[in-house]
Amino acid sequence: MTQHPASNSRISRFPVPTLNELPTDIREIIEAVHEKAGFIPNVFLALAHRPDELRAFMAYHDALMEKAGNLTPAEREMIVVATSAINQCQYCIIAHGAILRIRAKHALIADQIAINYRKADITERQKAMLAFAQRVTSESHTIEQTDFDTLAQHGFTQDDIWDITAIAAFFGMSNRLANVSSMQPNNEFYNLGRQPR
Amino acid sequence: MTQHPASNSRISRFPVPTLNELPTDIREIIEAVHEKAGFIPNVFLALAHRPDELRAFMAYHDALMEKAGNLTPAEREMIVVATSAINQCQYCIIAHGAILRIRAKHALIADQIAINYRKADITERQKAMLAFAQRVTSESHTIEQTDFDTLAQHGFTQDDIWDITAIAAFFGMSNRLANVSSMQPNNEFYNLGRQPR
Amino acid sequence: MTQHPASNSRISRFPVPTLNELPTDIREIIEAVHEKAGFIPNVFLALAHRPDELRAFMAYHDALMEKAGNLTPAEREMIVVATSAINQCQYCIIAHGAILRIRAKHALIADQIAINYRKADITERQKAMLAFAQRVTSESHTIEQTDFDTLAQHGFTQDDIWDITAIAAFFGMSNRLANVSSMQPNNEFYNLGRQPR
Amino acid sequence: MTQHPASNSRISRFPVPTLNELPTDIREIIEAVHEKAGFIPNVFLALAHRPDELRAFMAYHDALMEKAGNLTPAEREMIVVATSAINQCQYCIIAHGAILRIRAKHALIADQIAINYRKADITERQKAMLAFAQRVTSESHTIEQTDFDTLAQHGFTQDDIWDITAIAAFFGMSNRLANVSSMQPNNEFYNLGRQPR
Amino acid sequence: MTQHPASNSRISRFPVPTLNELPTDIREIIEAVHEKAGFIPNVFLALAHRPDELRAFMAYHDALMEKAGNLTPAEREMIVVATSAINQCQYCIIAHGAILRIRAKHALIADQIAINYRKADITERQKAMLAFAQRVTSESHTIEQTDFDTLAQHGFTQDDIWDITAIAAFFGMSNRLANVSSMQPNNEFYNLGRQPR
Amino acid sequence: MTQHPASNSRISRFPVPTLNELPTDIREIIEAVHEKAGFIPNVFLALAHRPDELRAFMAYHDALMEKAGNLTPAEREMIVVATSAINQCQYCIIAHGAILRIRAKHALIADQIAINYRKADITERQKAMLAFAQRVTSESHTIEQTDFDTLAQHGFTQDDIWDITAIAAFFGMSNRLANVSSMQPNNEFYNLGRQPR
Repeated sequence: MTQHPASNSRISRFPVPTLNELPTDIREIIEAVHEKAGFIPNVFLALAHRPDELRAFMAYHDALMEKAGNLTPAEREMIVVATSAINQCQYCIIAHGAILRIRAKHALIADQIAINYRKADITERQKAMLAFAQRVTSESHTIEQTDFDTLAQHGFTQDDIWDITAIAAFFGMSNRLANVSSMQPNNEFYNLGRQPR
Repeated sequence: MTQHPASNSRISRFPVPTLNELPTDIREIIEAVHEKAGFIPNVFLALAHRPDELRAFMAYHDALMEKAGNLTPAEREMIVVATSAINQCQYCIIAHGAILRIRAKHALIADQIAINYRKADITERQKAMLAFAQRVTSESHTIEQTDFDTLAQHGFTQDDIWDITAIAAFFGMSNRLANVSSMQPNNEFYNLGRQPR
Repeated sequence: MTQHPASNSRISRFPVPTLNELPTDIREIIEAVHEKAGFIPNVFLALAHRPDELRAFMAYHDALMEKAGNLTPAEREMIVVATSAINQCQYCIIAHGAILRIRAKHALIADQIAINYRKADITERQKAMLAFAQRVTSESHTIEQTDFDTLAQHGFTQDDIWDITAIAAFFGMSNRLANVSSMQPNNEFYNLGRQPR
Repeated sequence: MTQHPASNSRISRFPVPTLNELPTDIREIIEAVHEKAGFIPNVFLALAHRPDELRAFMAYHDALMEKAGNLTPAEREMIVVATSAINQCQYCIIAHGAILRIRAKHALIADQIAINYRKADITERQKAMLAFAQRVTSESHTIEQTDFDTLAQHGFTQDDIWDITAIAAFFGMSNRLANVSSMQPNNEFYNLGRQPR
Repeated sequence: MTQHPASNSRISRFPVPTLNELPTDIREIIEAVHEKAGFIPNVFLALAHRPDELRAFMAYHDALMEKAGNLTPAEREMIVVATSAINQCQYCIIAHGAILRIRAKHALIADQIAINYRKADITERQKAMLAFAQRVTSESHTIEQTDFDTLAQHGFTQDDIWDITAIAAFFGMSNRLANVSSMQPNNEFYNLGRQPR
Repeated sequence: MTQHPASNSRISRFPVPTLNELPTDIREIIEAVHEKAGFIPNVFLALAHRPDELRAFMAYHDALMEKAGNLTPAEREMIVVATSAINQCQYCIIAHGAILRIRAKHALIADQIAINYRKADITERQKAMLAFAQRVTSESHTIEQTDFDTLAQHGFTQDDIWDITAIAAFFGMSNRLANVSSMQPNNEFYNLGRQPR
């Protein structure tokens, strides 16, 4: 069964700079990611033609995904995958599906949430979290106090609700950038976290 | 990384008979599938409480998916996965995604089509096929002669167009049965066809 | 007031075989229907270019529509008409509207359900049945336990719920075949069951 | 086959005055309609609790439907039926479907247009007219010069386009009044125009 | 900051008669409005090529908007603005937004309701009124007794519910006429009622 | 005509820190904005409970809105207003509508674009820009090469297309944060740029 490698020209509809062309700070970050992951996730290369935007993107991403809080790292990735599924974003579902499998230590969960979170092997509390993320993504103008009350009944604090909202909103932005640029996920992501270790 | 085995009680919201309770003809078919695949796809067990319906389902399925014709077996599975994605059917995307990977000898294609066929690593002709299947699934009442003309320009015959239509229509039915029954895909399907052999 | 007879060429966008070209088993079934109804419903002719599919279609149809069960024959036809209305299927609304009028012995009910089941002259229990059929047709991925509970409160058993689901799903398939083929209902159907006898 | 007569209490969710309670001008109009049609269409009774609104409604109706112009009386009714189908208005489809059958001298056409005008036994020019009426009804804010050009190519003048627009708009209002009031069509309408004379 | 005056040719896609060409009764009404408002609202000019329709339009408008009743004049305008926002009608939002600001003596309320009535600075009772108007506008076929009950709990009578319905329905018609004709609001409307007096 | 001042408690559903509680860098930025604008736009206060996110938000905002490029500052604000209108975001339409009026030196344009950009007093090129922004906002997964070609025909470069995409995507995020937090625009924004100077 063959893997079809992505040629560089297919990473994005927009220009993709080489590492040498990048500002030092960005190149060093990318090299650090390369070192850690074993490959360079294409999102870094696809956004790199706009260094200021990439810096802000990374800062915002880390402020939401690397911060302390009640939501577990796996739960944050669940929100990313559920949001990206609504927006039909190839890059984000494949890449963050891999991260979700790893963080949740659950080989099946990313595919399940990408298809229909209502049937995924997650808790009722997590389903409520994703139902809210879905509303943030699709109809945020209709969110009312009752939505907050429902989440509170599942034990979510105001801080948690902000986290769910901000993660869904940030990746909604990311989905649009990836969809318009036709950003291609690295082949490595497809299989990460699927095998027992 | 753990696999979470499905207990029998989770296969369906409706009664699931044991093999011994089944009519002989159905039991023999299921045992043959078990022999060949190494496991019993849950769809057989989930539909078995209605033997007459299961027999018609299998006959219809085979008439569409096992017949000769211009559409390749992989292309038929592409239609199944694209249709099931619109209907957000967990069972059908997971099970037929596996079959698609195997038939297309392509490890990534099922995930790509399940997310957004427009960005999948397939031909323009196959994208036209899936665009039509999408219209059959979502707005068949608006299909007009121009749709047939577009397909003809891609080399599809009248017989091919019927095949696309009938496969999309049949699996639209299957999607609804699986969604309402909350039919669970066997864990085996998730990883089939993902690894080079 | 004139009736505009359908020329054979208008029955379907796909080939329509003559009776003589058909396999014996199918021809005999069609002749029996002709004998009983006084005309040959076009669906038989429009599907006959695919004998294996037609056989499976008829077997599935009869397994759902001719079986014993709590749902009355009229109620089964209500589900067909309500489903076909959502999918805007000319053949199915006209043909099954006629059958519904006859089975319900109610001259107005088919038009009412085809327009808006909420305002039809049916029971609250039947409205709950059609509300569920509508969800099966339009958003089956969101069906949850609460849907089952609502139906149970109206006295529907698990077997009844399967029947509603399977009828809505099967005719959703039929609607798509008829829409794409532009299958034309026989003129006879339009007036059947409208007059007091 | 029984006809289920509508008791007066079912004509509308709102108060229905008796003829004696009505202002003289309105009572005389209603009595003239009764004389001519053989029954009183319920719309007159359902709107009569608001005499000023009923007078304006009738004046507007007649200005659009009784005026001279290129659109035939049957074509005007086609627009009414197509619009009412989108809005799922029981009263308007049943009552104006009857008028359409009579004016078009075509027993099948109203049911066909109510289901899907694209498959109705009408001309391409009439389909273009109804496609525009559908856009007026569902997405009038997106109508652009190209819509006007398409209609001009089918021979429609500016005056005709205004007629199509105004009829679709007026009956869109009527549909909402009938839907909210749950206005019930007279049983007589269901069968009018269905039989050869 | 410049105001861009509308040349007469931009008022509508359809013919716009001069005052001298109009029937006397209509000209006198328009001159009276001119006298009172200081300018002629374009809707009069844009509808004037159809005098009978304009007369019916004005009569219907006044029957709904000038009548006595529990709904305040400002509340009636709220319904107009909320309905017109759903239909994205430039003329109606700008013109009736101005009237709403004046009648409500509230400089911000029209913009708020045009964007999202749920967040507007109005009472819960008024939000219930607009939620119902939204349902009348977007999905009147699904309105049921529970909608009436909800309004009754907010103190609305049957007469009030008819008013809400009829205003939403009438301006839904008006929105479609204005959208198709590309009716342009007078520049004067944009700023009316925005400044403290 | 009264202005209804917003009490601090109504700025957001989430905690709003006082200036003294903020990190020095953020407080200094806010004080500089206050100095320049004459008031503190509520978005700064509503996001300030999350300093890291606010810093990334401001950096991203400035990278998109303050950068050089072919799109004029007014055009960038047009994209913001059109996007925010789709998402029905009160804060963003009111605040950026004001900025748009000022940057475009056009008192009417913001209201027009917020209602329906197709009817706004802008160029065909700007309408193409907003049509693309609308697709980015509502259906980015369907964007194809033909969308890029259409924009190129209007003279937009690849860099311009990225700008349109990124601005629509960023403010789609901002819209969701504002909608969920029920962020309230300062009253000052409503009237800015409406009067000739």
